[in-house]
Amino acid sequence: MPIDQESIKGNHPEKTVISAALTGALTTRDQCEAIPYTPEEIAEDAAAAREKGAAIAHIHARTENGSPTFDTDVYQRISDEVRDRTDILINFSTGALHEPVETRLEYIREVQPDIAALNMGSMNYAKYSESRDDFVFDMVFENPFNEIREFLTTMRENGVKPELECFDTGHVGNIRPFVQNGELEAPIDFSLVMGVLGGIPPTVENLAHQVRQLPDDATWQVIGISRDQWQLVSAALAMGGNVRVGLEDNFYLPNGEMSTNPELVAKAAEMSRNVGREPATPDEAAEMMGIER
Amino acid sequence: MPIDQESIKGNHPEKTVISAALTGALTTRDQCEAIPYTPEEIAEDAAAAREKGAAIAHIHARTENGSPTFDTDVYQRISDEVRDRTDILINFSTGALHEPVETRLEYIREVQPDIAALNMGSMNYAKYSESRDDFVFDMVFENPFNEIREFLTTMRENGVKPELECFDTGHVGNIRPFVQNGELEAPIDFSLVMGVLGGIPPTVENLAHQVRQLPDDATWQVIGISRDQWQLVSAALAMGGNVRVGLEDNFYLPNGEMSTNPELVAKAAEMSRNVGREPATPDEAAEMMGIER
Amino acid sequence: MPIDQESIKGNHPEKTVISAALTGALTTRDQCEAIPYTPEEIAEDAAAAREKGAAIAHIHARTENGSPTFDTDVYQRISDEVRDRTDILINFSTGALHEPVETRLEYIREVQPDIAALNMGSMNYAKYSESRDDFVFDMVFENPFNEIREFLTTMRENGVKPELECFDTGHVGNIRPFVQNGELEAPIDFSLVMGVLGGIPPTVENLAHQVRQLPDDATWQVIGISRDQWQLVSAALAMGGNVRVGLEDNFYLPNGEMSTNPELVAKAAEMSRNVGREPATPDEAAEMMGIER
Amino acid sequence: MPIDQESIKGNHPEKTVISAALTGALTTRDQCEAIPYTPEEIAEDAAAAREKGAAIAHIHARTENGSPTFDTDVYQRISDEVRDRTDILINFSTGALHEPVETRLEYIREVQPDIAALNMGSMNYAKYSESRDDFVFDMVFENPFNEIREFLTTMRENGVKPELECFDTGHVGNIRPFVQNGELEAPIDFSLVMGVLGGIPPTVENLAHQVRQLPDDATWQVIGISRDQWQLVSAALAMGGNVRVGLEDNFYLPNGEMSTNPELVAKAAEMSRNVGREPATPDEAAEMMGIER
Ligand SMILES: [Zn+2]
Ligand SMILES: [Zn+2]
Ligand SMILES: [Zn+2]
Ligand SMILES: [Zn+2]
Repeated sequence: MPIDQESIKGNHPEKTVISAALTGALTTRDQCEAIPYTPEEIAEDAAAAREKGAAIAHIHARTENGSPTFDTDVYQRISDEVRDRTDILINFSTGALHEPVETRLEYIREVQPDIAALNMGSMNYAKYSESRDDFVFDMVFENPFNEIREFLTTMRENGVKPELECFDTGHVGNIRPFVQNGELEAPIDFSLVMGVLGGIPPTVENLAHQVRQLPDDATWQVIGISRDQWQLVSAALAMGGNVRVGLEDNFYLPNGEMSTNPELVAKAAEMSRNVGREPATPDEAAEMMGIER
Repeated sequence: MPIDQESIKGNHPEKTVISAALTGALTTRDQCEAIPYTPEEIAEDAAAAREKGAAIAHIHARTENGSPTFDTDVYQRISDEVRDRTDILINFSTGALHEPVETRLEYIREVQPDIAALNMGSMNYAKYSESRDDFVFDMVFENPFNEIREFLTTMRENGVKPELECFDTGHVGNIRPFVQNGELEAPIDFSLVMGVLGGIPPTVENLAHQVRQLPDDATWQVIGISRDQWQLVSAALAMGGNVRVGLEDNFYLPNGEMSTNPELVAKAAEMSRNVGREPATPDEAAEMMGIER
Repeated sequence: MPIDQESIKGNHPEKTVISAALTGALTTRDQCEAIPYTPEEIAEDAAAAREKGAAIAHIHARTENGSPTFDTDVYQRISDEVRDRTDILINFSTGALHEPVETRLEYIREVQPDIAALNMGSMNYAKYSESRDDFVFDMVFENPFNEIREFLTTMRENGVKPELECFDTGHVGNIRPFVQNGELEAPIDFSLVMGVLGGIPPTVENLAHQVRQLPDDATWQVIGISRDQWQLVSAALAMGGNVRVGLEDNFYLPNGEMSTNPELVAKAAEMSRNVGREPATPDEAAEMMGIER
Repeated sequence: MPIDQESIKGNHPEKTVISAALTGALTTRDQCEAIPYTPEEIAEDAAAAREKGAAIAHIHARTENGSPTFDTDVYQRISDEVRDRTDILINFSTGALHEPVETRLEYIREVQPDIAALNMGSMNYAKYSESRDDFVFDMVFENPFNEIREFLTTMRENGVKPELECFDTGHVGNIRPFVQNGELEAPIDFSLVMGVLGGIPPTVENLAHQVRQLPDDATWQVIGISRDQWQLVSAALAMGGNVRVGLEDNFYLPNGEMSTNPELVAKAAEMSRNVGREPATPDEAAEMMGIER
């Protein structure tokens, strides 16, 4: 029996949906050799992650040399290559710091992934270096309500499930207008992101607080940024939550070794089994999240 | 004996610091006749609020016809007029949606109020109308770390106490770099703002959560926007918190009557006495908050 | 609009059910002259409390000289005298430290009050004197599951609504077997008791925690023991909770003056209006709590 | 860096103190063959558990045929046998449902283990069978303040560190008189016990709540009863907490296989490493907990 009926919300008490965030947009092979760039590389990692227990592949497109791209063709090739290899659910990023909304809507509309991420509010997005007493970067991550609404509309019209990325308590609260007007309907899927300076601090206390804010029938996962990820994964698994791992969020295994996408997924699957929960298959994940395939 | 030792933090268990937010910048006399505009009107309200129990007057400057102004002369005249009439602590706003930082630093530097407000993070700042299914306004309230740092530096150099306005959990967490590098020292003063769409939803649960995030020796008040204010005031008083009321935040008494600054302060003082706490004098507030007069 | 949708549970957001705990069993007129002893005195106080805003009178029977009694005749006379005077809902205590269950069941069965209190768990029940470094009293308050079950059965068979008194987190959790087997059905009514050494410490944080444990459709009130009561009342009102006051729990107004039952109820009603909530009538309370009259 | 500075309290962020609860008093070899009975068997398991990562052995004495015993000679032999084999810290139970205090004080006084458990309050101690709709057992676990005080005094006089077992929120609050009078001094060690019907329900939310109640410099572990244990272990490790496992609390590995004390400790150690924390040695544990050896 699961211990935390309240926290489970709409998740499955005995199954964990593991997402693999394969690429991201901010890091390069100089930092971690195993980051996949091309559609083929991404698809290979997606298939390998699926073997290790992932049900969802969260993907940012890259050019051949690793720069971020929002090109519809690249996203289409990624989708095709992944679908050639595996039944994993495909989740595309829509976030960017300086890219117009229209650019980020087009590939959603054209390629129609199973799921697309949607940032639910604005915040500072920064990193502070104590040794240099300076901000390594310091940006305002802008996601006003009218943009959120455009994404929701496009996703709904194209049968794409929104994954609501919430970096703070207010971001969860920002669903209220869209619940009132019916643009968001149960089960709503949430990602509780922790570990970015500017957002909610990454503590178990805060994770439990975020989960309390969710509607009763929501599904949710934790996204922990940096090596603290494993502690958040451990807590989320105990609470009946789903989890995301992968090179976008953190390069390292708990023991400090730099790793690969399949290995990181394997570790998450092991930790899930340690609380008595098996990794969900893509079909099981789709059913929990209300995704028609 | 106070009931909530944990929540009291650095506040006084038997005294409540009441702030009167006299003017604000967003509303006009068309909406509420009693809003003071001129330095004399503001000073009169400050003195009357002091009589009713306020220890701090939080002030935005206005022109004669009520538009917001960041003019140093106007701020100077407000300061002079208030100091002619009463010993209330003077707190100047520094927030604005589209005004450069330098403009908002100048009057702090020149007029040197006892306290100045400082917004601790970015967020959506919006209002949704369910009947029209539309956003009445929808802005990104930008307060990146480098601007926060500039304000902190100017305030420290000019002997102005910063009042950290936190609209979300992450905003409280944003003190971390400044605590690490010593730019913020105990006792740190926090305003926990609730009731703006884009920030943390206004519940007692969330207020308790915000208080848990504060350092042990912090002082804190709640700022409730709109008529829900009275419920947040009631909860904060029970927790040993300080409170802010006034026409900037809410025009109405609990019974729904449109009111005035002194009446709103009188109601807060009455509610404070109902939990066994007397309003603090400006001198008592200064001592709690570490302000040298 | 109420601020705390989550905390309201099954309560009414704009109405507060005020209970008046008129007598209790542990204190005497030597300590507080206004405590009613006889059925007539109790009924007079019940009627006066109703005038000031109480919807429920919580009653322990006393002999002429003030000792506790469990005599069915006395309880019957109290019921008759109260019903002669007012429509207030009648709530009888069933708690006792050294009285057999059967004695406490008989007057419930015979007199059939609208509501009866039911202690949901065991705990230490103590008072510590710091000056003497000794326990003024130190008892084990025994309420094992089989006794709880007997009370539930008798109440159900006699159309008496149980009011579940919970002194700790586990006491709320103790409803689980009775929810599973159907002996407790929605809406379940909870009293969250705070302020007894041995039970949950009286903080707003802990009150919020207790409310989070309740089923969604529960009704609830706070019972604060001793003068801290007013702070708990203030917090509960802000959360949409119901409240209990009266000489059983606390003799004093917030300003420290010894008081009377009607005055204490009047203060609670004033505080309720200060958060925009009117006292509920007995009929309104009965409807909220699922009591057929 | 640990994620949860608040929750860590006095624990070590990079080391986990693992306790092995080797025997207990309520179960037998009919239920689980690997339960050690004799001093030699217990000492063998203690040494094996130490090899796998345990720093503390929590022990109840048993007779040759497995019945509980409070005999001082048996406790002395256990202590001698354990100390012959390993440097693990020795922790003796003092709890019992129907045994006089004096019996439970004697072996503490005579054998002087490093640590002794101390139950911090009274509660119902029950088990409910849904299929039979009946209570398998239903007792009042009595631990009044005067008994707690006797244990504290004896332990202090004999250099035995008390481990405060808290089954509910109020049990943590019950330290207040002893903190006020100086009978308990920092660092205080807490066991947060979850999973017994009558005590706090076993959820991560409730674990976080219990941790919030602790003094700043406290050390703490979670004790999860039954197979839900692994979820509580997973959460506690993420919060920087210490953990207890062993056949007293749960026979099974997360995959459902019946296990042994050393295997259960090995699983806890593996899970600890998965959040980046190494098992503490007995010496490291003693230093954290303020135990002089
Ligand atoms: Zn991404
Ligand atoms: Zn302002
Ligand atoms: Zn009573
Ligand atoms: Zn034990």
